[in-house]
Amino acid sequence: MPAHTIYNFSAGPAVLPEAVLRTAQQEMLDYNGTGFPVMAMSHRSDMFLSILHHAEHDLRQLLNIPSHYKVLFLQGGATTQFNMVAMNLAHGFKRADAVVTGNWSRIAYEQMSRLTDAEIHLAADGGKQFGYTALPAVESWDVYKHSAFVHFVINETVHGLQYQNVPKLSDGLPPLVCDMSSEILSREFDVNDYGLIYAGAQKNIGPAGATVVIIREDLLDRCPKDIPDVFNYQSHIKRNGMYNTPATYPIYMAGLVFRWLLTQGGVKKIEAVNNLKAETLYRAIDGSGGFYINNIQADARSKMNVIFKTSDPDLDDTFVREAELRGLCALKGYKLLGGMRASIYNAMPLEGVEALAAFMQDFQRRYG
Amino acid sequence: MPAHTIYNFSAGPAVLPEAVLRTAQQEMLDYNGTGFPVMAMSHRSDMFLSILHHAEHDLRQLLNIPSHYKVLFLQGGATTQFNMVAMNLAHGFKRADAVVTGNWSRIAYEQMSRLTDAEIHLAADGGKQFGYTALPAVESWDVYKHSAFVHFVINETVHGLQYQNVPKLSDGLPPLVCDMSSEILSREFDVNDYGLIYAGAQKNIGPAGATVVIIREDLLDRCPKDIPDVFNYQSHIKRNGMYNTPATYPIYMAGLVFRWLLTQGGVKKIEAVNNLKAETLYRAIDGSGGFYINNIQADARSKMNVIFKTSDPDLDDTFVREAELRGLCALKGYKLLGGMRASIYNAMPLEGVEALAAFMQDFQRRYG
Repeated sequence: MPAHTIYNFSAGPAVLPEAVLRTAQQEMLDYNGTGFPVMAMSHRSDMFLSILHHAEHDLRQLLNIPSHYKVLFLQGGATTQFNMVAMNLAHGFKRADAVVTGNWSRIAYEQMSRLTDAEIHLAADGGKQFGYTALPAVESWDVYKHSAFVHFVINETVHGLQYQNVPKLSDGLPPLVCDMSSEILSREFDVNDYGLIYAGAQKNIGPAGATVVIIREDLLDRCPKDIPDVFNYQSHIKRNGMYNTPATYPIYMAGLVFRWLLTQGGVKKIEAVNNLKAETLYRAIDGSGGFYINNIQADARSKMNVIFKTSDPDLDDTFVREAELRGLCALKGYKLLGGMRASIYNAMPLEGVEALAAFMQDFQRRYG
Repeated sequence: MPAHTIYNFSAGPAVLPEAVLRTAQQEMLDYNGTGFPVMAMSHRSDMFLSILHHAEHDLRQLLNIPSHYKVLFLQGGATTQFNMVAMNLAHGFKRADAVVTGNWSRIAYEQMSRLTDAEIHLAADGGKQFGYTALPAVESWDVYKHSAFVHFVINETVHGLQYQNVPKLSDGLPPLVCDMSSEILSREFDVNDYGLIYAGAQKNIGPAGATVVIIREDLLDRCPKDIPDVFNYQSHIKRNGMYNTPATYPIYMAGLVFRWLLTQGGVKKIEAVNNLKAETLYRAIDGSGGFYINNIQADARSKMNVIFKTSDPDLDDTFVREAELRGLCALKGYKLLGGMRASIYNAMPLEGVEALAAFMQDFQRRYG
């Protein structure tokens, strides 16, 4: 390994807790004295079913998931999920609502109409309204009472926007469907406010290949019988998440991350650290006298993906290159926006963020 | 680890080469001196792109894949693939043909009609014809010249059937689409005989979560623009397999397996071992004087999944239990059929099969 510590600010697949990787390393050829590698276990074996059961149990504990919500670990990432949401939950409805607040919710809005007869109605457009520098207030969403659902993305990984107050809708309005890929487990919220939550694991949980779905039981009645079973939530639930072979190793890794988070004190504890990490970086940006720029409205700034740039794209490149040499890695911004992006998920320690803030000061001193 | 050697006969997820697991273990926290765990690499990083590139390169070498075939590593397993095949390749066609030869091809036949307007025509039914104890000859398939494609499963994992001569169609007939999940890389064949090949990795490649797709370039022109991009082969190809985040770690593992297979001498060499393994087990069955039963026609017997039973289900249970105690694991047959199933993919060494054959003799001596 290189001589210095590496801090990995990748937006995903992202940093994993070192303790989790060490456990996985130790258990690679022999899980828990069974003589079996996790990867070689049949998904229907008692060994793997126990791994799956514990992963779900720990996730339920961490998020306080009520018993009338079902949990699935599926394949295909968030891009598969918003299509499954449309195919399953819009069935029999004339309309579903979609809120656009950045890159991912825009893609979802554009794509989810392709496999449903329901009209996907644009309930708010943060691009048109604010150029993605602020978020449309929940109260301003143009939501139709009889819509199938309201889809939104709570944290926009690319644009660095996050609803600071977790959105909820009034009683009598449609169920909220939320893409939580880049923020699940980073702060407390009430699952009861949502009809369906999904999250690709490769950001705040761990390894790519597993996708968490949390769905309110009554919504399963909507799933049409004539879609392929592999895209049907009800089929997966009826087979206890074993309709087809799940991504067993990514699920095992997710389970290790859940257990690690419990030993850290759970979501409430990590939320306090996450707040501190975000404050540290935004303070470094705002205290730079305009050398570093983040023009997102204060109450919409993401605590998971902090984007910033200087006024000079060449200087941004220099920043990314020099940071890399100091072990501050994967800070290059998304190609759409340029500049820098520091993704500071649960597994990024405070020390990593402090090292980045110190480097930002040093860099400004030399180039500012 | 338990004192005795464990031989894992699971049908999938299945045994992996020990050398591969040891490499993965060693590199868990630091891939190749980069200081990065594979799981924490951005899928767009040069590090991961190199892993992906080498995996594809080695697979192309192993299967001698011509340059006008594209290779993808997708998520969702075979059950996602037959639906994607229908959505993409049947577009604009009135009919596609499906051959049913066992459990998996029957499921594909039943499901793939759900997302296409084309009629899915049953071109052969090995259940009706032979009760799944023989395979309909390719020449007997009722294939329509103007069909979109002909779908079949070359090795039926559950029913233990395998086409011993790799099927091909005459010139002028539709492209063959083949589910090779439980036999890819186990024997030589000519990719040119196929339009599209797919394979869930968790059988003969390694870890669950990655699915290999090999598609003839010209077929990409069929992919309709109005289906979701995540289900569109063309969208995945246009983004170099990075339309969405792939299952990076399963792909890395698959790459390690490909490299291992090259060091074993490639497909031709492993095919000879596989032949020997299958002969050993079928000889043990046929030489048991009727104590062990496999009533599949000789030229349809699978060399990957050897099913057998005694005439007494209770005795089968005893067999599975006693075998387990000797380290011969995961021999219980698929619930649909009962009895036993020994899956003997590439990573199962000849010694494991010999140990099983010896146990079969011993068991018969005691209970026969």
